[in-house]
Amino acid sequence: MEPAAEVYFDEMIQKNLSPEQLRQFNKIHYGREDHNEVKLKETTAVSASEKNNFQVQAYAFAAAKEETRNPRILKIGLVQHSIVLPTNKPANEQREAIFKKIGELIDIAASEGVQILCLQEAWSSPFFLCTGEKKQWDEFIESPTNGPSTKFLAPLAKKYGMVIISPIFERDDSGVMWNTAVVIDDTGTFLGKHRKNHLPSIGSFSEAGYYEPGNTGHAVFETRYAKFAINICYGRHQALNWLMFGLNGAEVVFNPAATIAEFGESFWGIEARNAAVANSYFTAGVNRVGSESFTVIKDDEEKKICRTYYGSSYVTAPNGCRTPSLSRVKDGLLMAELDLNLCRQVKDHWGFGMTARLDMYANELKNKIGYT
Amino acid sequence: MEPAAEVYFDEMIQKNLSPEQLRQFNKIHYGREDHNEVKLKETTAVSASEKNNFQVQAYAFAAAKEETRNPRILKIGLVQHSIVLPTNKPANEQREAIFKKIGELIDIAASEGVQILCLQEAWSSPFFLCTGEKKQWDEFIESPTNGPSTKFLAPLAKKYGMVIISPIFERDDSGVMWNTAVVIDDTGTFLGKHRKNHLPSIGSFSEAGYYEPGNTGHAVFETRYAKFAINICYGRHQALNWLMFGLNGAEVVFNPAATIAEFGESFWGIEARNAAVANSYFTAGVNRVGSESFTVIKDDEEKKICRTYYGSSYVTAPNGCRTPSLSRVKDGLLMAELDLNLCRQVKDHWGFGMTARLDMYANELKNKIGYT
Repeated sequence: MEPAAEVYFDEMIQKNLSPEQLRQFNKIHYGREDHNEVKLKETTAVSASEKNNFQVQAYAFAAAKEETRNPRILKIGLVQHSIVLPTNKPANEQREAIFKKIGELIDIAASEGVQILCLQEAWSSPFFLCTGEKKQWDEFIESPTNGPSTKFLAPLAKKYGMVIISPIFERDDSGVMWNTAVVIDDTGTFLGKHRKNHLPSIGSFSEAGYYEPGNTGHAVFETRYAKFAINICYGRHQALNWLMFGLNGAEVVFNPAATIAEFGESFWGIEARNAAVANSYFTAGVNRVGSESFTVIKDDEEKKICRTYYGSSYVTAPNGCRTPSLSRVKDGLLMAELDLNLCRQVKDHWGFGMTARLDMYANELKNKIGYT
Repeated sequence: MEPAAEVYFDEMIQKNLSPEQLRQFNKIHYGREDHNEVKLKETTAVSASEKNNFQVQAYAFAAAKEETRNPRILKIGLVQHSIVLPTNKPANEQREAIFKKIGELIDIAASEGVQILCLQEAWSSPFFLCTGEKKQWDEFIESPTNGPSTKFLAPLAKKYGMVIISPIFERDDSGVMWNTAVVIDDTGTFLGKHRKNHLPSIGSFSEAGYYEPGNTGHAVFETRYAKFAINICYGRHQALNWLMFGLNGAEVVFNPAATIAEFGESFWGIEARNAAVANSYFTAGVNRVGSESFTVIKDDEEKKICRTYYGSSYVTAPNGCRTPSLSRVKDGLLMAELDLNLCRQVKDHWGFGMTARLDMYANELKNKIGYT
């Protein structure tokens, strides 16, 4: 029997239901009338994924035709990947090995026409926060404008005309650390950054000892392809975080994450999806994958820490329709063609924005917390 | 082949997966380690449900033992039911027929020890709003304190020491209509009411022509058994509605609804569940079930309108763990034993309340909407 961690949820369902049952499942559970799968270019995506043993999947979300607006098709890509080298190797070696893997994935994404690519939380380093230690991880904390991750990605962004969202550990000019998503635009230029708004302290795991909650508000990035925002990891649990990105005009909100099964895997599939429905925009959750082992020395004793991320990246449309998840255990590239016209169409249809009564809530919230 | 509307989602999954696969499905999809099914009293619930062809199901959510607090076990019941007589019969006859059915279900709920019972939206009448007409439905609009529904339920509440949530169409003392949930406490006394905060206008269906959005804020009802709130139907789409009930101290939020497949069935299962997680309380969604036909005369032409509600009532714990749904097509009683201690335990564990930064959001929201 396969161990629990190996189960690929969507595959299990697909294998065990009849075609008619699967249609029902997709309709009731995922809001899909069919799979909307997009054929990948045989010569690039498929052969490369077979060679490198990673998943490549692509889906499309259509919108109704409009009279005064042409379809606004955006192709996004999400990359989930494991680290490559053991966490006790020199930082530069670890990073270079990840760069090599990601470079190949970006080449494939480009060949498939991806316009905005989002990498997972802290994509270019091990997620060392679980150790509670600092000194030995300093080398992974970077400048958002000219650190190694930005320097690696900027030429690729320019080469492919691709906007890239690069979540890293930031060290600012005053030497203070942040959990930050850097946005590199399609000309390879640093466009801006968003700092993680909400920080977890769960059991023995705490980010609050590393950095403060973000101070960049709810920035929406205007790019050539779309207006989007980034809700980093734990911020997906906060409805108001999602709401503000929407009020500020985001058409897509990316949720790069680093989350393990014990931290709420059963609601990974509902939070970003619920946010898409509530705010009439697309959401894209991209989670780390694979296991990361650390040796921590505490009170002269060596302690092993191992954390396994469950991947399962997925995209949801404003009408609640979602893609299947990427694998729980494999590296992968999930692509989705979004007709951004769907945002306004759904917002007008359901009326969740129109009926939101935000004036009432601003007042109630202000009174509740004694804010004046 | 069964028509699509007949599919009972959870049953389909249960029948087609192996026990180990089902365990995985329940874990990843529902956050459950097992079914947590509670055995029903053979002589009452089971035999009555077989006789009357309705579903009776019961589940339990446990919490960890605490040193200074005893377990606080609350047993809730949700009733989903179809109307009994055609919608063109006299109002009193229609209502009496529903009363008879509900009386039997309340007897069963009482024999199983239910302490708080929630009925579906507008439980004692057909959901005539889809006709867009008013005059012929006047008879179904009631006084919350001494209308027929309250008069019918109050003695049962007293007899069984059961708090009953009774969502009705209200006519207030000035003759104005509201969509209102009446709370009758365990002594059979009118405890208070909550009026629906958000009103749908979707396609040709609009509630905005019948009544205004509620003006009773986000009341939490303190009863002998628990502090709870009521989020009526469409209000489940609004994250701030759920949030305010939580900030006001609700341990359970009921979501009585009247919703059809076309209006977002694919996210019925995620909205109340997401709210439970986000706010560290229990949620209980209870939706109408069955088909209701109306004959509308418009421009001298008779038009038939038929709407089918999909039931699927379910309960979610603050940790995201949820029960299976009741049937999509049958009447039913869903009972759940909740250890209310779980709310604080989960809130402390995940820290979503602690990290919510409400002061920041109150400020941002105020600035965004120009509220001063």
